[in-house]
Amino acid sequence: MLKKEEDFMREAIGLSIANIENNGGPFGAVIVKDGKVIAKGVNRVTSNNDPTAHAEVNAIRNAAEVLGTHDLSGCEIYSSCEPCPMCLGAIYWARLDKLYYANTKQDAKDIDFDDSFIYEELDLPIEKRKIPTIQILKDEAIQAFNKWQSKVDKIEY
Amino acid sequence: MLKKEEDFMREAIGLSIANIENNGGPFGAVIVKDGKVIAKGVNRVTSNNDPTAHAEVNAIRNAAEVLGTHDLSGCEIYSSCEPCPMCLGAIYWARLDKLYYANTKQDAKDIDFDDSFIYEELDLPIEKRKIPTIQILKDEAIQAFNKWQSKVDKIEY
Repeated sequence: MLKKEEDFMREAIGLSIANIENNGGPFGAVIVKDGKVIAKGVNRVTSNNDPTAHAEVNAIRNAAEVLGTHDLSGCEIYSSCEPCPMCLGAIYWARLDKLYYANTKQDAKDIDFDDSFIYEELDLPIEKRKIPTIQILKDEAIQAFNKWQSKVDKIEY
Repeated sequence: MLKKEEDFMREAIGLSIANIENNGGPFGAVIVKDGKVIAKGVNRVTSNNDPTAHAEVNAIRNAAEVLGTHDLSGCEIYSSCEPCPMCLGAIYWARLDKLYYANTKQDAKDIDFDDSFIYEELDLPIEKRKIPTIQILKDEAIQAFNKWQSKVDKIEY
């Protein structure tokens, strides 16, 4: 029962533990296609000076590079922790088939990561969020969307 | 009134329009620090085979590289469209001071981008989401967080 899935998750957990000793956060992820790990990722935010370098985002970028497509349909992701909104968004954009996770966003909060806070912020109306968020120049920006709509040979996704 | 802010947003909108002719999606963003644009980004998802290559994520990565830190406190982002959950998450992780946007997620939906759908999915309980999401091996994964907690010289963020 779930034997293979547990093996893949153990690999993600192993990455999360090894990453702590490698100046990274305690997070790891692997992406599986046709029963094989095709890409891995760990948290390299502070070591790479990249706030987007979470384990899942890195695993997704690596998988997309390996497969030569932005569309990861047919792949599954195993993450050692429930994804934050950034990573969950990336999982949807990548069209992954399935998500396995182990630790929860509450567990992440308990060791002082902001995952829960960001989930709460996304749930608030724009005007109540901590980061001031202001709409300007909508009439000018919509021209880009109109141009996109009328473009015949665009690559949609 | 808002003259400088409008100039920065016009730069983001200009990027979004130019990107359409450069095989990218109709999205652009700039990051401003001390009254100057320090980084730019456009949507390169299909052209770079990277599902995370949205305008805001790319602008944030570029700004972090320019400044040599994952912490973009003191910076503002101007995005030609309201950020999707992935990008909004990235904006929070980057600790940007302020967010200006022009088009809305509804505008993005109207030209067939999935932003609204992903916002709706994040609001659902895990068991009701379109991407099956399953928790396994929590007891093993928590060891990474315990190890992180007990590490003395860790770099928190």
